[in-house]
Amino acid sequence: MTENYNVCQLKSPLKLECGLALDHTDIAYETFGELNTNKDNVILICHALTGSSHVTRLDDQDSEGWWEGIVGPNKAIDTNKYYVICSNILGSCKGSSGPTSLNPKTQKKYALDFPIITIADIVNAQKQLLEQLDIHKLYAVVGPSMGGMQVLHWVINYPTMIEKCIIIASAASLSAQALAFGTVGRNAIISDEAFNSGNYDTKNPPKIGLSIARMIGHITYISKEAITKKFGRKLQKKLNYGYHLDHDFEIENYLKYQGDKFVDYFDSNSYLYLSKALSYFDLNQQYGDLQKAFQSVTAKLLFVSISSDWLYSTEQSREMVRACMSLNKAVSFCEVQSDYGHDAFLIEHEKFAAIIKPFIETSS
Amino acid sequence: MTENYNVCQLKSPLKLECGLALDHTDIAYETFGELNTNKDNVILICHALTGSSHVTRLDDQDSEGWWEGIVGPNKAIDTNKYYVICSNILGSCKGSSGPTSLNPKTQKKYALDFPIITIADIVNAQKQLLEQLDIHKLYAVVGPSMGGMQVLHWVINYPTMIEKCIIIASAASLSAQALAFGTVGRNAIISDEAFNSGNYDTKNPPKIGLSIARMIGHITYISKEAITKKFGRKLQKKLNYGYHLDHDFEIENYLKYQGDKFVDYFDSNSYLYLSKALSYFDLNQQYGDLQKAFQSVTAKLLFVSISSDWLYSTEQSREMVRACMSLNKAVSFCEVQSDYGHDAFLIEHEKFAAIIKPFIETSS
Repeated sequence: MTENYNVCQLKSPLKLECGLALDHTDIAYETFGELNTNKDNVILICHALTGSSHVTRLDDQDSEGWWEGIVGPNKAIDTNKYYVICSNILGSCKGSSGPTSLNPKTQKKYALDFPIITIADIVNAQKQLLEQLDIHKLYAVVGPSMGGMQVLHWVINYPTMIEKCIIIASAASLSAQALAFGTVGRNAIISDEAFNSGNYDTKNPPKIGLSIARMIGHITYISKEAITKKFGRKLQKKLNYGYHLDHDFEIENYLKYQGDKFVDYFDSNSYLYLSKALSYFDLNQQYGDLQKAFQSVTAKLLFVSISSDWLYSTEQSREMVRACMSLNKAVSFCEVQSDYGHDAFLIEHEKFAAIIKPFIETSS
Repeated sequence: MTENYNVCQLKSPLKLECGLALDHTDIAYETFGELNTNKDNVILICHALTGSSHVTRLDDQDSEGWWEGIVGPNKAIDTNKYYVICSNILGSCKGSSGPTSLNPKTQKKYALDFPIITIADIVNAQKQLLEQLDIHKLYAVVGPSMGGMQVLHWVINYPTMIEKCIIIASAASLSAQALAFGTVGRNAIISDEAFNSGNYDTKNPPKIGLSIARMIGHITYISKEAITKKFGRKLQKKLNYGYHLDHDFEIENYLKYQGDKFVDYFDSNSYLYLSKALSYFDLNQQYGDLQKAFQSVTAKLLFVSISSDWLYSTEQSREMVRACMSLNKAVSFCEVQSDYGHDAFLIEHEKFAAIIKPFIETSS
């Protein structure tokens, strides 16, 4: 871990939406750049489902961050100007409290005894973290995908704290189709024999189920265009079909590789909890409709969608934009033209930088 | 089984594309209507991945067939006029030879010793069946989905036998995305602990894997519109979220139900073999391009696609139609406007009947 990586223990119990509370909550976070004396140059970055606090690298010795193309010195989110904070979300397995943490009551891993968490809980943990860091104003909150849902909760619930926010490739709720893919992934994990009601040995996790969940995820993160262009029906090695039940096509090997790799990187229980938090997020259900949801917002909003994203569609961004427009909010919207699908925000850095940088840097 | 159900043992060994041959091949089939004296009123119907020979019911006592809305007395494919034959495809588990059959050499189930089969092999088995039934002319060959691929192989390879053919919601090959979903399903089955290299006990089949494969399949068979309209984000029973890892949404229960039901209906090894046959089918790869593929065709062709089908898209039908048009073939094309997705051919009977009936009944 580099010197900018910290774990903060929250001082107060974290009250959760489900009615329970966490007495002991750790939140791992990283900071980049310098906090100015007015403490008004803070940008909070919220990560997606399987991300971490490591949004960018601190120096050449550091490992690659998940949004290097956007965050760093002289980049779209310029760490020479802004004090960037990115914390690992509650429930994850990248340093913050979650099902892999020790339950202080039993001194064993929580596993499925960890309470069910929501986007609201994730945001409230971030807010406590910021308070303990004596940060009470956010120049901007920015997040893609599940991170966008956190931004939405932030800007609706803590309007006076925030000047600007950017919601990228996200939605007011998962579509029915996205819910469906999510539930198949969770079923694969839960029905894996190694799952053992969540009490698996870390040396013997439910690899098969988590790998299947990741493979399904990957297909939904790529557009039909991108999967066709990148793999098409290309065969691996041989020119002809193998006439066997093993993998013949490059796409088969790629998905299996992604699934297997993920098992070493992510925890199955964390995946279940975060996938469930995604499925529960629903501004329409929570507020009655989107107009009511956005009523409180005072920040400038920028929604960014991706033309070929079929998991979080442009139409889902537009619905929120329309609600904000009808309320005369300061809302901007841009659909990035990209063939990459949902994952474009991790790939097409130049296109996203060209939208994010002016929005961030224009003075209010 | 009703009186029109028969199992025919092929007299000659069935030579397969993989280079092997099956010495003993059973093909289960059902017939509906009467063969006329000229034997020129035969319509062969080719079923999809998990279908059977039971395309329609013989009488009120009979169980429901998979295409009742289209096939029967006075229906679009009128069994008062035509002699309809539908056979269970090679490799399936609904009466024809496949991995669930006894291997005559070992007197045990084939399991994964069954040779790899292709759409060509499935069609060649159908052709041998017809020859043994002394049928040498087909007034029409009709098939949806994987059945459409069989129709394509029929009409390209046995052009002089066939007068008309209808290819419904099918393609010259699976798209990269469809290949991807298929491979995740096969991975789920193969990595299920109960799979045991295909040598599972029928009382203890790889239920989990097959159920996951079916759930994935179901999502791809439904359009985004249909899944939204039918389920949306509707919660089951309770009004509020359960804050648990169990199913909250109706779509979750529906998919789990479909997955579990399928396990009692279909064999895992058969699913693997047929899914693999689907993935190998590729007219471009086989013939060089679609123009070369359709060169031999003399039959009248009708392609039908479904507007909301994202598994076998309208564009995939159009590619074949364009190739046929450039060759001046007698080709017709219709895109059925439907929100149901790929499964529309099993649901929107009236729309399909309105296209199929005139094409079948117009004299040549």
